[in-house]
Amino acid sequence: MNSVFVEDMDWVNYRERTYDGSQRIIIPVGAIEQHGHHLPLNTDVVIPCHLAKALAEETDNLLVAPAINYGYKSQVQSGGGNFFPGTTCVSGSVLENYLYDVMDAYLRHGNRELILLNGHFENAAFLAEAADRLTEAYSQRGVRVRVYLLSYWDFLDEALISELFPDGFAGWQLEHGGVLETSIMLHIDTARVKMQRAVDSEPASFPPYNVFPPDPDWVPASGTLSSPIAASAEKGALIVDHCVANMVSHFGYFR
Amino acid sequence: MNSVFVEDMDWVNYRERTYDGSQRIIIPVGAIEQHGHHLPLNTDVVIPCHLAKALAEETDNLLVAPAINYGYKSQVQSGGGNFFPGTTCVSGSVLENYLYDVMDAYLRHGNRELILLNGHFENAAFLAEAADRLTEAYSQRGVRVRVYLLSYWDFLDEALISELFPDGFAGWQLEHGGVLETSIMLHIDTARVKMQRAVDSEPASFPPYNVFPPDPDWVPASGTLSSPIAASAEKGALIVDHCVANMVSHFGYFR
Amino acid sequence: MNSVFVEDMDWVNYRERTYDGSQRIIIPVGAIEQHGHHLPLNTDVVIPCHLAKALAEETDNLLVAPAINYGYKSQVQSGGGNFFPGTTCVSGSVLENYLYDVMDAYLRHGNRELILLNGHFENAAFLAEAADRLTEAYSQRGVRVRVYLLSYWDFLDEALISELFPDGFAGWQLEHGGVLETSIMLHIDTARVKMQRAVDSEPASFPPYNVFPPDPDWVPASGTLSSPIAASAEKGALIVDHCVANMVSHFGYFR
Amino acid sequence: MNSVFVEDMDWVNYRERTYDGSQRIIIPVGAIEQHGHHLPLNTDVVIPCHLAKALAEETDNLLVAPAINYGYKSQVQSGGGNFFPGTTCVSGSVLENYLYDVMDAYLRHGNRELILLNGHFENAAFLAEAADRLTEAYSQRGVRVRVYLLSYWDFLDEALISELFPDGFAGWQLEHGGVLETSIMLHIDTARVKMQRAVDSEPASFPPYNVFPPDPDWVPASGTLSSPIAASAEKGALIVDHCVANMVSHFGYFR
Amino acid sequence: MNSVFVEDMDWVNYRERTYDGSQRIIIPVGAIEQHGHHLPLNTDVVIPCHLAKALAEETDNLLVAPAINYGYKSQVQSGGGNFFPGTTCVSGSVLENYLYDVMDAYLRHGNRELILLNGHFENAAFLAEAADRLTEAYSQRGVRVRVYLLSYWDFLDEALISELFPDGFAGWQLEHGGVLETSIMLHIDTARVKMQRAVDSEPASFPPYNVFPPDPDWVPASGTLSSPIAASAEKGALIVDHCVANMVSHFGYFR
Amino acid sequence: MNSVFVEDMDWVNYRERTYDGSQRIIIPVGAIEQHGHHLPLNTDVVIPCHLAKALAEETDNLLVAPAINYGYKSQVQSGGGNFFPGTTCVSGSVLENYLYDVMDAYLRHGNRELILLNGHFENAAFLAEAADRLTEAYSQRGVRVRVYLLSYWDFLDEALISELFPDGFAGWQLEHGGVLETSIMLHIDTARVKMQRAVDSEPASFPPYNVFPPDPDWVPASGTLSSPIAASAEKGALIVDHCVANMVSHFGYFR
Repeated sequence: MNSVFVEDMDWVNYRERTYDGSQRIIIPVGAIEQHGHHLPLNTDVVIPCHLAKALAEETDNLLVAPAINYGYKSQVQSGGGNFFPGTTCVSGSVLENYLYDVMDAYLRHGNRELILLNGHFENAAFLAEAADRLTEAYSQRGVRVRVYLLSYWDFLDEALISELFPDGFAGWQLEHGGVLETSIMLHIDTARVKMQRAVDSEPASFPPYNVFPPDPDWVPASGTLSSPIAASAEKGALIVDHCVANMVSHFGYFR
Repeated sequence: MNSVFVEDMDWVNYRERTYDGSQRIIIPVGAIEQHGHHLPLNTDVVIPCHLAKALAEETDNLLVAPAINYGYKSQVQSGGGNFFPGTTCVSGSVLENYLYDVMDAYLRHGNRELILLNGHFENAAFLAEAADRLTEAYSQRGVRVRVYLLSYWDFLDEALISELFPDGFAGWQLEHGGVLETSIMLHIDTARVKMQRAVDSEPASFPPYNVFPPDPDWVPASGTLSSPIAASAEKGALIVDHCVANMVSHFGYFR
Repeated sequence: MNSVFVEDMDWVNYRERTYDGSQRIIIPVGAIEQHGHHLPLNTDVVIPCHLAKALAEETDNLLVAPAINYGYKSQVQSGGGNFFPGTTCVSGSVLENYLYDVMDAYLRHGNRELILLNGHFENAAFLAEAADRLTEAYSQRGVRVRVYLLSYWDFLDEALISELFPDGFAGWQLEHGGVLETSIMLHIDTARVKMQRAVDSEPASFPPYNVFPPDPDWVPASGTLSSPIAASAEKGALIVDHCVANMVSHFGYFR
Repeated sequence: MNSVFVEDMDWVNYRERTYDGSQRIIIPVGAIEQHGHHLPLNTDVVIPCHLAKALAEETDNLLVAPAINYGYKSQVQSGGGNFFPGTTCVSGSVLENYLYDVMDAYLRHGNRELILLNGHFENAAFLAEAADRLTEAYSQRGVRVRVYLLSYWDFLDEALISELFPDGFAGWQLEHGGVLETSIMLHIDTARVKMQRAVDSEPASFPPYNVFPPDPDWVPASGTLSSPIAASAEKGALIVDHCVANMVSHFGYFR
Repeated sequence: MNSVFVEDMDWVNYRERTYDGSQRIIIPVGAIEQHGHHLPLNTDVVIPCHLAKALAEETDNLLVAPAINYGYKSQVQSGGGNFFPGTTCVSGSVLENYLYDVMDAYLRHGNRELILLNGHFENAAFLAEAADRLTEAYSQRGVRVRVYLLSYWDFLDEALISELFPDGFAGWQLEHGGVLETSIMLHIDTARVKMQRAVDSEPASFPPYNVFPPDPDWVPASGTLSSPIAASAEKGALIVDHCVANMVSHFGYFR
Repeated sequence: MNSVFVEDMDWVNYRERTYDGSQRIIIPVGAIEQHGHHLPLNTDVVIPCHLAKALAEETDNLLVAPAINYGYKSQVQSGGGNFFPGTTCVSGSVLENYLYDVMDAYLRHGNRELILLNGHFENAAFLAEAADRLTEAYSQRGVRVRVYLLSYWDFLDEALISELFPDGFAGWQLEHGGVLETSIMLHIDTARVKMQRAVDSEPASFPPYNVFPPDPDWVPASGTLSSPIAASAEKGALIVDHCVANMVSHFGYFR
């Protein structure tokens, strides 16, 4: 059994790999959320799963867990908003508690380090809270565990961003459905991207606050917050390679 | 876009398919749980996803949602117990609340009927409670919605069971990792089943009660509650065909 | 003080009996739920209380706690449904948490083994979850405790079932308000059963799934899921004797 | 069927009595809590059940529901404290949520007025919160319901208190296990009171604050907060008659 | 830095003061609640903050934490009711959990004793529950901590009450917006009291039970439950001096 | 009564101001958190309270509510971390629920628009979730309400930032205890800032991920994430004026 995916193993394989606590478990956490007219609803799941697999295959102590498919509510200024058809999200405390229990289960197997690989901007605070509460509970029982929380776009450095966005970079929040995600998806599986449907548009512009209930008029009609037109599979390959290499430099050995 | 999978659609496709409330959304709910030495840990996810796809392809008003991968805690008498390496489960109220929010999100899109297709015996009570609370909340607001709760094994009739188990059938609870699941998995993807590792054994025998914390000595060492040795891809095909045909007879039209 | 009921003791008696951890506390858990035209609404409370008393009187290390009167929501296929007048049920997590606290309180007194004696089919999953979470919490603190979970009908063996149901046995779920419960109630207190009101009917027949909100048309008009007509006090005596003897064989000594 | 107890009815009886919303349901809420060396642990259940029955029998639109047996944690200054053997209590939010669901179930039957008859001092705030949240939820749906919250000792007027306590009355909190409760229990069922074990003592005296964890040294060794020695069945009859008459004057008709 | 207020310190000051566990932290807990026509909405915050400061300045091991501004729902018989404009309250479990976390944070700093100084009658049960659960959690981990729960009016003795209320004292519950609170506020800051707007009235009179939803007709139109007319700054000074002296006698040294 | 502070009003004033729904309520939400050696622990409370007052005084339909003093857990990369002495924070769901209830209370008074003015970076996701859930609940009941969520630093435009940080701006997260907050505090109340204790340092530098439990070694020893040395009261005045003017342009009229 050479798969890096936990789901492919039987329990005896899994035990052999994990019993001594030498493995770190990567849990991809995504969302089912609109990403414009050209990307599938599970874009935020596909990308972290792909990166997790690539990362695990570059090392010898990482296993990839089944993903958390449904994530926290899409917000207007980073995902277009929770009112889009197909955007299918859960509330914050529900995501936090579900992930808490999943992580706890992996720690009970004897694993001591987990990596949450986040593919959906809005998840971050709730993943952090789940990780904080869980590691605190273990600390109180005198068991040392660690949870790392990664959002993949944080592994792209300034130089690459300048190269990818020669006309200026508007920030990760506006990359929803834009060049970054579209390029990566083109690289991973061109067939899942319908570039002919991609809508060109100016980057979204928002007032310096949020309003609830969210106002659909604030969001570009296409659902993307910046234009995906400049995306390409080549850029996607560059991003993925860069991102994985950077992750390997941080997580390629057991600390 | 002819895929039956929600995850393959973009939000415009999804809206076109669902806007008039004509579609029913099938949500497969599984578990990551040991199934003996020969089956992968995601057996309870793979099977309902496969059946949901088959069911959707036989009809014109069913779409398949991304699965809930992590389910309720494995119990000794139906899944071997939550202490097995690789068995990775969440608590009951956490599953209930996660599923509640996911279902609620699909109803907000304008869908009016959902089908929970359960692949893990222990999930049932918590799925029922989520469905009951959610439909009650919609009723209080005067919105008529319906949630159907199916466990796939309930769609096999007596005649088929007698044919599959000529020496007598010990009940669905003991089919954990046995002929039923193994045959279906052989049919779906032979490569994921390692029959050469399958352990033959008598059906598990339990006292007429449960104990907590669960006692590992109650469970056969292999983790299966009955022997998978008699499983075959042919039986799997028979089961799947029978099961899907029976589901179609119930859910092939909109009621 | 020779009563086996905790509620009859004062705290000094109770301390004398329990201080050394030698006693096991039986907690009857029932429901207030319709059982047809002929049985009182607290049938599911009366029966486990009676059996708990009988079991405690046969041993010297069992005490009977006050019952949990209100249980989990009646389901259509096992209790007729939560919409019947007089069916008065609580949600699953609420029952789980209430029972969790009650059990925790008995453990704090120094007791180390508890027996949940369930009288209501639908309670089972939530009692299991309460027991699992509680014993896990004690394990984490290094305190060894045990909770046994019993549904009384599981203590009747095949031979007795064949004797009681010579024309075939349709399963415990359909015994709601049928021969089993009616006979036991006739045995415990004939005056509480109004056999002249009992409604004869075929066993209920359900599709292989559930729907929410529940559909009252699925349920026999009487509320029972099988006919109570063949019930008798003699059968009740047989059932109770058999059940208690079997429980004593398992719980008559401290393990 | 002339019983005032819901638990004695079958669902058809219950429906006939309650269908038009003419009945009010009294729910006794007690506790399992030490009451000195001479009173049983369920004193706080027995008393409100007795008063509820008496009240219902004096009117024609009151039914008595099965009691809530386990109440909120005993506090040092009103019940001796939660550390006594036999004191078996649940946390506040758990009691609140359990009672919320029970009340909600009675309202779903079509009843529109509920009476919580409290027998345990410490329950009061949590019963109030459950009633407040529940009636608010119904108000939001435009359904007018009412919940009355009664602690029985509040129905004794100044004159009676002076008569019962000629040497001065120290307040209801110190009546835990004292003349009030002991007299009532002697009146209800003399056999359940062991006056020969009753411990004479000065009323308890506390500092003007509470401390957590509670300090057992603050509590009289007997567990009662005032002496029960002056109790008698005659006083109990007087109290019960007075209390019931006062309740009837308030709840004897439908408002 | 000689301030007794935590909020005035920087973290280095705070660490120097608290590192050895020698300090007790006083947390004032109030409410935003109507107090008649003459007192500001934050009366229940101002008073415990003032008393906490005075207490801390009389000792050398007490620090005053920032207050909890929003408290539990005003009740008709002690605060006029939650329906008054300006009365801005939270539910019981929410207050309990918020305070739980705040107290836990102070204990994590190394402090071992906390004092909850309550200024709002209705808070008491929920503060007690928070303190009970928190100290229990620390006990289970073997860490000895203490939480004291004080309502300031409990530090006034009988003699002072007789002096303040020569015509008889109706109980603390009716002191809402009356002589007690008004006098203290006049003493603390005369400018915040508008005595010319104070409404004279008889003490409120209530039936011996509560009803939910609360009935505004039960409450005096002014919102106070007794008349504030006899209030004076002199009485306020007397009350505060007396109260602080009594608190110092109990909490002026570390026990 | 000309105060803009809710807490200064009596309920009759408050009703007169708010009865017609013409007022918007600003709720400052802060934190008790270390801000280096030179700033007090309540910096994140003082600043939004000051800005709320200034904003309210510039308009005629804004009132300032009492602040939420205790906020969400300080994170290493934006606040130094929750392990600093004096940093006193609550968990995410607890903050969310407390704020939910507070906002709900203000809406019950008849107010229809609320403004959450956030002073603590880490609060944002939990405030958004509270606002989303609350406005959703009102929408379901057909009541139109709005909650605006503002973090004050978002009201400073690029030009001002360039002016304030001539050597480059490292992002708001690193402004914890730096020039921004220190300057504002100097402007508000110079006496509360101890510039002589301010520690000069390079901006903090973090890896592209988080770890739990947080690692204190990641944080500059002083607790600030950038140097406050360049702060001045003049810059503070500029920031406050700019920020308030920008807020007024957005919230100076009722939309």
